[in-house]
Amino acid sequence: MRVLAFLDGTLADPDAAHIRVDDLGLLRGDGVFETILVADKNPRELRPHLDRLARSAAMLELPAPDLEGFERAARKVIDSWIGGRELALKLVYTRGIDGDPAGVPTAFAMGLEIDEKVQRARTEGVAAVLLERGFGPDVAERAPWLLLGAKTVSYAVNMAALREAGRRGAQDVIFTAADGSVLEGPTSTVVVAKGRTLYTPPSTIGILPGTTQYALFRGAEKAGWTIKVEPIPAAELTTADAVILASSVRLVTRVHTLDGVALPDSAALHRELVAAYESEY
Amino acid sequence: MRVLAFLDGTLADPDAAHIRVDDLGLLRGDGVFETILVADKNPRELRPHLDRLARSAAMLELPAPDLEGFERAARKVIDSWIGGRELALKLVYTRGIDGDPAGVPTAFAMGLEIDEKVQRARTEGVAAVLLERGFGPDVAERAPWLLLGAKTVSYAVNMAALREAGRRGAQDVIFTAADGSVLEGPTSTVVVAKGRTLYTPPSTIGILPGTTQYALFRGAEKAGWTIKVEPIPAAELTTADAVILASSVRLVTRVHTLDGVALPDSAALHRELVAAYESEY
Repeated sequence: MRVLAFLDGTLADPDAAHIRVDDLGLLRGDGVFETILVADKNPRELRPHLDRLARSAAMLELPAPDLEGFERAARKVIDSWIGGRELALKLVYTRGIDGDPAGVPTAFAMGLEIDEKVQRARTEGVAAVLLERGFGPDVAERAPWLLLGAKTVSYAVNMAALREAGRRGAQDVIFTAADGSVLEGPTSTVVVAKGRTLYTPPSTIGILPGTTQYALFRGAEKAGWTIKVEPIPAAELTTADAVILASSVRLVTRVHTLDGVALPDSAALHRELVAAYESEY
Repeated sequence: MRVLAFLDGTLADPDAAHIRVDDLGLLRGDGVFETILVADKNPRELRPHLDRLARSAAMLELPAPDLEGFERAARKVIDSWIGGRELALKLVYTRGIDGDPAGVPTAFAMGLEIDEKVQRARTEGVAAVLLERGFGPDVAERAPWLLLGAKTVSYAVNMAALREAGRRGAQDVIFTAADGSVLEGPTSTVVVAKGRTLYTPPSTIGILPGTTQYALFRGAEKAGWTIKVEPIPAAELTTADAVILASSVRLVTRVHTLDGVALPDSAALHRELVAAYESEY
């Protein structure tokens, strides 16, 4: 099932057309989005997601989004949901109609079912491949027009990278920078465990600040872990105690295989990190 | 005015909604497009544009587009156009609805008016700025998942670069690779004139093969120019006899100012190149 709501809190039929062909979100990928896990009617990290939506919008010089309206639409979707106990809640915000002098953005919230692949990834983990992202780690701050770190709907490359992973017999991707350091997944943040320390790369290298990674770090810190935000050379992934992909819907997913090679067994560590993350809710 | 047609040749109201909120073109920028100039009912370089649409679709592993259907829709738009003698014809092709097991793409053709900025650019030229694109020139062939050279609707970066140009008092951008070589404009191909030779960078460095650049080279070759496809160091732009941005709608536009510095006067050369291009129609 799908549930659709607009920012005034009205529901609409998700199987009907609501978008014009000249919406710049469609013609130019000119918009931003967030995906939020809702579990038992509770949208996880709603405020950080709304804040990130606003930050992404600012990077694209979109009008500041009506966050109250997005929250209203989100609540309407959640209240109307009669599917399973979890749903994926998407918030979408585009520049609106090409040439519209009023510049009215397109904005909606949509609830979607979570497919079974997600459940499998959460429990069994995933095989991932390393793929070059092409950029150096220093370009993001120098070249803000590259929108690195903005969650735009221009996700064609992320989708192509996931197809490439599939061709290589894997389910996910870890992007690397031109210097061989770890960036992020196409839809996730990379976290590495070594001893009792969790590492994630700094968002200044051109990656999205992760809401789920942040929640995991909060929970892990309370559980006695040390957390460090610093560059991670890709070569260190193979010797880490655990390689984790943190994302809003798949949550804390462990990578069991990298480029076809089995990583050290991190199943026990993964259970511990999932518990630390879940302790936040 | 706007005119909208679908691939079965039916017209539809462009001011009405025709796209669902869960279209992957909207949610993920997961689609491809072409923009074609129509002058006096004649779509310029229609076949090369259709071929490029098919090539872009293949790079995204979309189903092969129904080119006959696109041609039918294009003809319908053109035949129904009652605006000025020129229009911009957009062909759009997305992966369709998220989760649709049938995987039916979204496809349409749309005619749009050409705004007066385009006319001004054609006659007066533009000021441009050099902006880093972040990539090295060797990454495209190594990393096809980056979709360099595919004309996707994931154009948020191209749009952001044009806004950056505006902030710097310019109207257009020339992207440079990590090694300082010339790539392309956000919506154009770069052509440089030196003596009686025209240069453009090879598409293997991760740029779109230009339909208008190709037509210009055809016409220029007949007019006695030598044409060369080879890397162009950005530093050579300031000493060239003319720097041209070739694009389907703005056609052959000269750059008169680069990074705030006036380039050598190329007005006469520009007239000659426009004539060579126009001789193809």
